[in-house]
Amino acid sequence: MDQKLDCFENEAFNRGRSLWVEAIWRLVSFIIFENSLVHPYFIKRVILRIFGASVGRNVLIKPNVKITFPWKLAVADNTWIGERVWLDNLDQISIGKNVCISQGAYLCTGNHNYKIETFDLITQKIIIEDDVWIGAMAIVAPGVVIGRSAVLGMGSMAASDLEPNTVYLGNPAARIRNRD
Amino acid sequence: MDQKLDCFENEAFNRGRSLWVEAIWRLVSFIIFENSLVHPYFIKRVILRIFGASVGRNVLIKPNVKITFPWKLAVADNTWIGERVWLDNLDQISIGKNVCISQGAYLCTGNHNYKIETFDLITQKIIIEDDVWIGAMAIVAPGVVIGRSAVLGMGSMAASDLEPNTVYLGNPAARIRNRD
Amino acid sequence: MDQKLDCFENEAFNRGRSLWVEAIWRLVSFIIFENSLVHPYFIKRVILRIFGASVGRNVLIKPNVKITFPWKLAVADNTWIGERVWLDNLDQISIGKNVCISQGAYLCTGNHNYKIETFDLITQKIIIEDDVWIGAMAIVAPGVVIGRSAVLGMGSMAASDLEPNTVYLGNPAARIRNRD
Repeated sequence: MDQKLDCFENEAFNRGRSLWVEAIWRLVSFIIFENSLVHPYFIKRVILRIFGASVGRNVLIKPNVKITFPWKLAVADNTWIGERVWLDNLDQISIGKNVCISQGAYLCTGNHNYKIETFDLITQKIIIEDDVWIGAMAIVAPGVVIGRSAVLGMGSMAASDLEPNTVYLGNPAARIRNRD
Repeated sequence: MDQKLDCFENEAFNRGRSLWVEAIWRLVSFIIFENSLVHPYFIKRVILRIFGASVGRNVLIKPNVKITFPWKLAVADNTWIGERVWLDNLDQISIGKNVCISQGAYLCTGNHNYKIETFDLITQKIIIEDDVWIGAMAIVAPGVVIGRSAVLGMGSMAASDLEPNTVYLGNPAARIRNRD
Repeated sequence: MDQKLDCFENEAFNRGRSLWVEAIWRLVSFIIFENSLVHPYFIKRVILRIFGASVGRNVLIKPNVKITFPWKLAVADNTWIGERVWLDNLDQISIGKNVCISQGAYLCTGNHNYKIETFDLITQKIIIEDDVWIGAMAIVAPGVVIGRSAVLGMGSMAASDLEPNTVYLGNPAARIRNRD
């Protein structure tokens, strides 16, 4: 199988906003989001809403968080996004209430069809239900649904859906026990 | 199990310094530690000692290192802290002599009690004994003791104590041989 | 086994350029490469060639890429280097045509002889053949050859050579299927 990256196909992909809006977002993100300085949480919530995100009450976004497209993000009340998290939302990422995404976690919505030469971009949504804990440095793959109250351990990799109320660990993540 | 993050409980947690000191540290860290520019090692040692760290002779701290609370850090002589390492020391991290922490490693001291609604913060110390090598991009979990002369391979995850003089690899890390 | 890091031995290691050139590269990298701002691809290609890299046509280097020594890098036509990739090329890294190195991947060429007190630096080349896809947050170890059209899955760790036209996943990476 050859990849012809000069014939790369991403026509089905919709960035969701003009390149001008994206450029302004990148600059704002550089100044306010993607560095170690501490800015008030409410300012970050307001900025994200201006750029089209749905952001609930008491959402806490720590320093050095990267959000690729805020207009493809929904985060419900009381949820935390930890330091150095990357929400790589080429497609929609929907995060429920009372979710903790710990530091350094990476949520990926972009994939490629590696069985064809044009290496087509495939984007798939991620859904994180209420009361989930995604551990530090964990990875969530495109298309994954994390069931309510599930726990994904530190440094683990969720390549497929996680059952509700269950604890997973390892790369790839394996079920290790019920949460209760 | 529900998490009520608006009722989050961390009363047992002592940041160790006032928020003013922490704010000054964050600014100093932003300017001197958390970027790719090269600053003299002795200046970094002096700054860390001013902020309460115990730092031995010839300790080398490479660019882009993040230390959450320097007042909860002890590093002995001849130890190296590599580029892009994050010592996330909400609790004490004690590192012995002649230790190599390679680039991108992450040492985590913060955990949560995910069996109760208030999702209590639990911090646990990390102890790294003399002559240890923590490989690039490796992860060390809260409460772990890394025994003398142990080796944790690149990209591996130590979720429990490592035996002295032993080489571990994988996520989660498995014993693969004696070091000698 | 003791490590005597104050007797560290790296005499066999050749940085390849003077410390002056390295210092200028670090500054240029800080301004143009290692941040989230978007700079034109052709400017990055020209800069890398000035610093001794071999860079083919249509090579795309995204923001926030770290290249330790550009004079030890060869990248052929139509290849992509994703955001937050780190090419840690203390030794030569050679990347073929039509290769996709996805975001956050880490390619490591530096190792240590942990069986002797002087902890000697050992560098080993990495070769990535044509049409390979290295997934997001994946790790490639020193000395590894990634065979033509192989795929290394997201968050996986290649500690040894990968067969051509084969898909690998996990840490350590295991063969899961043929690519076709």
